[in-house]
Amino acid sequence: MNIWNKLMKRQVEENLTKHGIILPEPPVPVASYVPFVITGKLVFISGQVSFLGDDRSLQGKIGQELSVEQGYQAAKIATLNAIAHLKSACNSDLDRVKKCVSVKVFVACAPSFIDHPKVGNGASDLIVEIFGEAGYHSRAAIGCSSLPLNCAVEVESIWEIL
Amino acid sequence: MNIWNKLMKRQVEENLTKHGIILPEPPVPVASYVPFVITGKLVFISGQVSFLGDDRSLQGKIGQELSVEQGYQAAKIATLNAIAHLKSACNSDLDRVKKCVSVKVFVACAPSFIDHPKVGNGASDLIVEIFGEAGYHSRAAIGCSSLPLNCAVEVESIWEIL
Amino acid sequence: MNIWNKLMKRQVEENLTKHGIILPEPPVPVASYVPFVITGKLVFISGQVSFLGDDRSLQGKIGQELSVEQGYQAAKIATLNAIAHLKSACNSDLDRVKKCVSVKVFVACAPSFIDHPKVGNGASDLIVEIFGEAGYHSRAAIGCSSLPLNCAVEVESIWEIL
Repeated sequence: MNIWNKLMKRQVEENLTKHGIILPEPPVPVASYVPFVITGKLVFISGQVSFLGDDRSLQGKIGQELSVEQGYQAAKIATLNAIAHLKSACNSDLDRVKKCVSVKVFVACAPSFIDHPKVGNGASDLIVEIFGEAGYHSRAAIGCSSLPLNCAVEVESIWEIL
Repeated sequence: MNIWNKLMKRQVEENLTKHGIILPEPPVPVASYVPFVITGKLVFISGQVSFLGDDRSLQGKIGQELSVEQGYQAAKIATLNAIAHLKSACNSDLDRVKKCVSVKVFVACAPSFIDHPKVGNGASDLIVEIFGEAGYHSRAAIGCSSLPLNCAVEVESIWEIL
Repeated sequence: MNIWNKLMKRQVEENLTKHGIILPEPPVPVASYVPFVITGKLVFISGQVSFLGDDRSLQGKIGQELSVEQGYQAAKIATLNAIAHLKSACNSDLDRVKKCVSVKVFVACAPSFIDHPKVGNGASDLIVEIFGEAGYHSRAAIGCSSLPLNCAVEVESIWEIL
């Protein structure tokens, strides 16, 4: 690790503290897959749903049972779960994250819904808030007729680590 | 290839035999795309549908025309097609597969469907059955309002090879 | 750059001219994400919608308001936007594109729609037209209940560059 990296060290944890963000316990998949796979410098994080621990209140379709603002929050929660797994992938050192490569935001919504980007911003804003410049990622947001366990948003992501 | 790899050689084919799994002829795409692309050590396999050769019986939406169990089978078939292409990508030597990196399970289903993980397990269970430890992958499963040719499940995957 | 590459130089721009293809101004995302991220030799391009500049005529669902042929055109336009961003990623030199790795075609359509591959060909045909042999990619096409801003098609892509 070079000097610059040493100076920057702990920056991500400080950002978390500054913004009052507490990472959840990373949810454990109950099947023959794993929360993340590392290949070369890339970490592929499994699709994360918008439940925070046992709290499954963000269920339903955005534009029907849920508002766009609730969709924004749901995207944030799913992304928090992803970052909790990312931390495990980095042996608890989030400063090893070099960049967020790709984020896919799957939005459960009515066929008439068109505000997927506003929902996706819940993921994007959080990532940039936590990782700063390293957080700027490519993104796709799409509408889904349904998502696992009736969750409102699912977020899949790819990261580059040092 | 090191000694350990030599010892492990033919393990995957033995697993296929042990579980009575016969890989299908890899289906040929009829368009200007290809079944897989290799970049560095990664193999990107095109989305595979849940038809086994000419048998297109697994059509329809899960939770409507098809049961969750049929969805599980459909995910298995789509994954079999993916592994058939993966074998071509490895010049017929599946022992060159270092790990399964990422699996996306697209589930054609009704808007009220919530059991995508149970369908996705058809893909995950098969991959671990065939590749053992190397088969543990990251995964996302989502609901789609429709899929190509009315297939029940489409599976997209990324693999790391030696 | 080796001699062969020097000889091939400007091939892609010539192809664009030959086919009368003019790349659009790359559309700017209005959120905390970016049009593309480069990691190693891979370029991840954000999901691109089927609007050409201010022209948002390709709105609606294919198989309902829009025909399959319009879907084909929509996939082409979304892909043009992706290639415009790819050109930026390559510092304006599209001859640095080594291969198109992966294309995902998200199709806004009715639940009864089954011709996603025909829509996806709008993306695939264009890429091969522009990049020749290097354009052959892996692909997945799926149906979505809705897409951002009511666009008909969204295209996400991964490319390898020199």
